Amino acid sequence: MKLKILGSQGALPKRGMYSTSQILNIKNKYILIDCPEGIQFQLKNFKIKFSKIDFILISHAHGDHYFGLIGLISTYSLLRRKNKLKLFCPRVVSEIINAQIKISSMFLSYELEIIELNSEKSETIYESNDFSIFTIPLRHSIYSNGFLFQEKNNKRKLNLDLAQKLNINKVYYNKLTQGENVFNENGEEIDYREVTSKGLKNKSYAFCSDTRYFPNIIKKISKVDLLYHESTFLEKDKEKAKLTWHSTAKDAAKIARDAKVDKLIIGHFSSRYENLDLFVNEVKQIFQNVELAFDGKDIDI
Amino acid sequence: MKLKILGSQGALPKRGMYSTSQILNIKNKYILIDCPEGIQFQLKNFKIKFSKIDFILISHAHGDHYFGLIGLISTYSLLRRKNKLKLFCPRVVSEIINAQIKISSMFLSYELEIIELNSEKSETIYESNDFSIFTIPLRHSIYSNGFLFQEKNNKRKLNLDLAQKLNINKVYYNKLTQGENVFNENGEEIDYREVTSKGLKNKSYAFCSDTRYFPNIIKKISKVDLLYHESTFLEKDKEKAKLTWHSTAKDAAKIARDAKVDKLIIGHFSSRYENLDLFVNEVKQIFQNVELAFDGKDIDI
Repeated sequence: MKLKILGSQGALPKRGMYSTSQILNIKNKYILIDCPEGIQFQLKNFKIKFSKIDFILISHAHGDHYFGLIGLISTYSLLRRKNKLKLFCPRVVSEIINAQIKISSMFLSYELEIIELNSEKSETIYESNDFSIFTIPLRHSIYSNGFLFQEKNNKRKLNLDLAQKLNINKVYYNKLTQGENVFNENGEEIDYREVTSKGLKNKSYAFCSDTRYFPNIIKKISKVDLLYHESTFLEKDKEKAKLTWHSTAKDAAKIARDAKVDKLIIGHFSSRYENLDLFVNEVKQIFQNVELAFDGKDIDI
Repeated sequence: MKLKILGSQGALPKRGMYSTSQILNIKNKYILIDCPEGIQFQLKNFKIKFSKIDFILISHAHGDHYFGLIGLISTYSLLRRKNKLKLFCPRVVSEIINAQIKISSMFLSYELEIIELNSEKSETIYESNDFSIFTIPLRHSIYSNGFLFQEKNNKRKLNLDLAQKLNINKVYYNKLTQGENVFNENGEEIDYREVTSKGLKNKSYAFCSDTRYFPNIIKKISKVDLLYHESTFLEKDKEKAKLTWHSTAKDAAKIARDAKVDKLIIGHFSSRYENLDLFVNEVKQIFQNVELAFDGKDIDI
């Protein structure tokens, strides 16, 4: 999995940076997570082909997380997109997008499939042989979900020399790496474990924004390889965090520690803070392996 | 009047530039003309205080002219705007904005007055002692208006030495520059023409986008000091212009020439063109006083 941060800021973007948005490449699918105003420009800035995006996931119906949707949906038609676009979003976002399309009689050159999210419990919203996506119900001033991405069935590693020595036809290599026995050219059955070793670990990524400190998510995101958790405020402004249903850096750190995640990325910083190093310092008192999100940052998971 | 180009491009922005948008300062009122996605960032880039904007005018309901509206409307609440915002726009835009506000239960900290435009004839949409705004009905694939801004009652110039010599109380100077007679300290009536001379000319600006070549507008924009006219295409692509209800550079030039305007600015260039000088060259075969719009350009009218 490869994650790119397209936007790292809170509702009032500053420093020429964008509101929260990320693009995840998982098993060659491209998933856009949240879509604030202007995200098209950011995709252009980072030379990401618009047509690559298969899914768009929207966490919640606050403008800094979805005002860029209608522009992207419309641009896809100008670019004559043909392949289906799947949009997973809360009902409010679905209603607004449908209203905009209907009132403006917008022509779409492709199928836009909108999957409304409204469950208060975690659900599997996508599943293939390669990976699954689950919602992570959060606690914000309005209905809000995080998302858990879980790789599956990473292929085993083939010992090529041995496979050749054992006279196995090339067309069966794929089956072996998928954990199936095959027959060689001499008609002998070959146990896949004989010619393959354990492949890459199935990795997992959890995106959690926007939310107040909500320890109920810990079980769901337990031991993920990467956790993105919002930290809009520093602990000294915890009253503001409470009032606006956001988290502090300390909150994010406690979640990361208690869920025993491998690495934490924090973002969605309020525009009031000039020195973002204070966020890292605050987290490190509780959890060491932390990095700041910033626009354009690439993370290998 | 001072005009600033915030965005100069067509529907698919490129070169890091924005879709059509301008801000006009007329008699200390600030008017935003069209509002594409991301215009908030552009206001920030050019250090224009958001709160300064009194009116927003939307020409037509294509996304590259209004997708930035909801973000700006929402940001004004985050910034706790108090003074009323007047939005003049086609009915479709009004319906979409109202739907977005209603469905998302958006809280507005200020009064948003939406004035729907639907007349096929030119109308006066704003009038004060200082200036008027008229619509300029255009011909595009959907209902579209340009806007004519006309200064009024520019004050006469006071001859201060003479006014003092004639023993006129300072409190009456304003009346004199507005063309009213006053009495001096000796009780003698003073003709305003005696102590004032003609002031600055009342200037006019016409904004015309998006439209195909539509000579009916010539009478309305006759002799304006500045005309902005879209020129999405070069004449060699006039078939594309026809198909998409846009103008070529030659079309814009003919309108400027026939309306005897003082100066022409062209913009809304299709992203297919790399060399925009070709637009200027094409116009100059017909009309000399022409400039290209580009993001950030300032024009004194």
